[in-house]
Amino acid sequence: MEKKTMMKLGLSMRYLGYHMAAWRHPDVPADGGISFKYYLETARKAEAAKFDMIFFADGVGIRAADNPKGALSHDSKNVELEPLTLLAAIGACTSKIGLVATASTTYNEPFHIARKYASIDHISGGRAGWNVVTSWSQEEAWNFSKDEHLGYDERYERADEFVDVVKKLWDSWEEDAFIRDKASGVFYDESKLHIPHHKGKHFKVRGPLNSARTPQGRPIIVQAGSNETGRVIAAKSADVVYSAPFDISAAKEYYTDLKSRLPSYGRTRDQLLIMPGLTTYVAKTRQQAQDKFDQLQELIDPLSGLSTLYSAIGDLSAYDVDGPVPDVPAVNSIGKNLIDIAHRDNLTIRQLYKRRASGSRQLIGTAEDIVDDMEQWVTGEAADGFNLCPAILPGGLDDFVEFILPELRKRGLFRNEYESNTLRANLGLSPLAFGK
Amino acid sequence: MEKKTMMKLGLSMRYLGYHMAAWRHPDVPADGGISFKYYLETARKAEAAKFDMIFFADGVGIRAADNPKGALSHDSKNVELEPLTLLAAIGACTSKIGLVATASTTYNEPFHIARKYASIDHISGGRAGWNVVTSWSQEEAWNFSKDEHLGYDERYERADEFVDVVKKLWDSWEEDAFIRDKASGVFYDESKLHIPHHKGKHFKVRGPLNSARTPQGRPIIVQAGSNETGRVIAAKSADVVYSAPFDISAAKEYYTDLKSRLPSYGRTRDQLLIMPGLTTYVAKTRQQAQDKFDQLQELIDPLSGLSTLYSAIGDLSAYDVDGPVPDVPAVNSIGKNLIDIAHRDNLTIRQLYKRRASGSRQLIGTAEDIVDDMEQWVTGEAADGFNLCPAILPGGLDDFVEFILPELRKRGLFRNEYESNTLRANLGLSPLAFGK
Repeated sequence: MEKKTMMKLGLSMRYLGYHMAAWRHPDVPADGGISFKYYLETARKAEAAKFDMIFFADGVGIRAADNPKGALSHDSKNVELEPLTLLAAIGACTSKIGLVATASTTYNEPFHIARKYASIDHISGGRAGWNVVTSWSQEEAWNFSKDEHLGYDERYERADEFVDVVKKLWDSWEEDAFIRDKASGVFYDESKLHIPHHKGKHFKVRGPLNSARTPQGRPIIVQAGSNETGRVIAAKSADVVYSAPFDISAAKEYYTDLKSRLPSYGRTRDQLLIMPGLTTYVAKTRQQAQDKFDQLQELIDPLSGLSTLYSAIGDLSAYDVDGPVPDVPAVNSIGKNLIDIAHRDNLTIRQLYKRRASGSRQLIGTAEDIVDDMEQWVTGEAADGFNLCPAILPGGLDDFVEFILPELRKRGLFRNEYESNTLRANLGLSPLAFGK
Repeated sequence: MEKKTMMKLGLSMRYLGYHMAAWRHPDVPADGGISFKYYLETARKAEAAKFDMIFFADGVGIRAADNPKGALSHDSKNVELEPLTLLAAIGACTSKIGLVATASTTYNEPFHIARKYASIDHISGGRAGWNVVTSWSQEEAWNFSKDEHLGYDERYERADEFVDVVKKLWDSWEEDAFIRDKASGVFYDESKLHIPHHKGKHFKVRGPLNSARTPQGRPIIVQAGSNETGRVIAAKSADVVYSAPFDISAAKEYYTDLKSRLPSYGRTRDQLLIMPGLTTYVAKTRQQAQDKFDQLQELIDPLSGLSTLYSAIGDLSAYDVDGPVPDVPAVNSIGKNLIDIAHRDNLTIRQLYKRRASGSRQLIGTAEDIVDDMEQWVTGEAADGFNLCPAILPGGLDDFVEFILPELRKRGLFRNEYESNTLRANLGLSPLAFGK
């Protein structure tokens, strides 16, 4: 079995699953969003299946606009646990699986972020990862004494400097800095303390961090990195990138581009893993898989469905959802395009919003169908693995484990056992030299 | 047994114990400060002993000044785990004990703080508490892009508004707001969402919090509250206050003052518990207890000892620590007073810094001696309980459990079993009405 083709797998487990109707599925506990037990049991399943990591996306505020009126109260995404406390708690009850969560560079301070992720890395014995994002929503700005969110350029510039500061803080102490010699009274070796003294455009941070170097050297850095500035940050600092285009040819271009940027930062191709999102509907037969998808699509609440069209087309709540999409003036070019598609394909309003309901790339079929596709991406240099975004939790994970994992393993595409106790080593990333 | 005299007990467990030489004690693991296992085992001991809560003090930066030169590298307090991630992890592995940690109102945002403590309250099933502090040290300011820390008035004014905002965020959703009716598609009852829309001098926070109302209604609020502004905040919002003067008559005055302030905020005397810090050295005989204290005092590293005198007297590192305190000009009036005491009592430099080494009130003696004192404080309305600050961990806790707890229980002064699963109920605080 060639090592190169062994894929990495993450499990994205925010909310109750990635389908907007997940909470209405009969197998999903609708109150799971604030249940530690629910998340812990799912994480333990992922660990039993030898997933590389679990991942929590995050935002620091809920949607404010209630469009159409009443839609907000039909949305389950109003309530959740805070990801860093949740990750630490899960870390205390697991032993192998990686623990990745999002924290924004826009409304946080580098010292807090460096410290919390370092702490989770210590608590978990080397399994922490930070997904670096910027915040662009109005609602989040309003929760942090800001009238407007930062503009694109400033946001990314701040993010770039933020990551630099956090890395400097993580490098405050060399691995063997703490001597702790009870006889002489010397606690640390002064020559192995490196005070960051960072002074930049956005931050002035003296340091050092009040944490020892972590078991992984530093936590893993994850990034989305789709736009140009994001790609630069990813090529410079990320260990894992989640985003990738939906079709394989664009994904190959992205993969080639990002990997080719690494040498200019003194890094090699195998030091950055690309793991695009993937949602799977799998069963013994294609029809059964399709039925699972259709069942969820049918559960989309009309008001919630209409809310996915609102910003592009406007308020359609006065029309019959099972009637034709009316010939109204669209809000923007996306809306214009949606209306054209609806008229071309003769879609009802319900049929149109169903097409808008899914976020990540979807595969519907048998295990063979889906693994064929996954194998093609990984052997074709379009991905190093996938970040599974189940439509429902834990059901979507259960199906993946039951149907897809055996097929992946039969083909030598996924591990049978963890190679190590740290996320870094399980991802196949080489040990980190100090200051890197 | 009269309920009134049953005392509350907290365990303060930052670092390796509260004595500055704790890390050099033969029974203390010097690398415990970054060991989750070490803290978890200590927390489990406290839970087995039925303590009301564990508590982590905190600061967001380490000492910068190295006075006298080299002293900093002899200090064990340079490295620790971050308290909120640590608390969440401990919460996942315990089931009854309260979980309290410090977070500063000076370098945090109310939304983050409200969210993280709410999350820990959910994860732990109702055991979270927030110790509200302000940050006054230069070193902390330097880690958060500030040249100077905030002045006293602004710091406390910000703290006061910060607590108000956090409480509003915790009251975003009524307890039964989330209907989660799969059939109708309604996730929450719009009439039970209360968006804070806070606009104050220091903060503008729209909300709502993306968390459901927590098992305790909201996390417990703890405060130090020694100065006037602190007393006002405590009387208005705190459930527990840690600080109290060292001697019983001043403690009684403090207790009477703080309790008498409650009615003007619509609160009753039993809605605020006063739990001063206490360090105990206990053994079968008084001599053995004194030996335990003396052993630790002997372990104080001379450079660390001299650092406790530096800010008051200046650099004494050129003098023999076992020689007399020299007749140098003091830095300030505290130093002048220390030099006078040293000359009056004929103290060596070592003897002088030993007197400076302890933080909280200390009791040295047999279980009977110490429980006599504790009982006098609790029955005399000087305290509702104590926040134990062991000199070393876990040894200081082990001794307390072995010697003092049986004596407390014999006199009916401490519980045999937890009364509830929430911190609020174990503290004997009545359930919280919405909006309070």
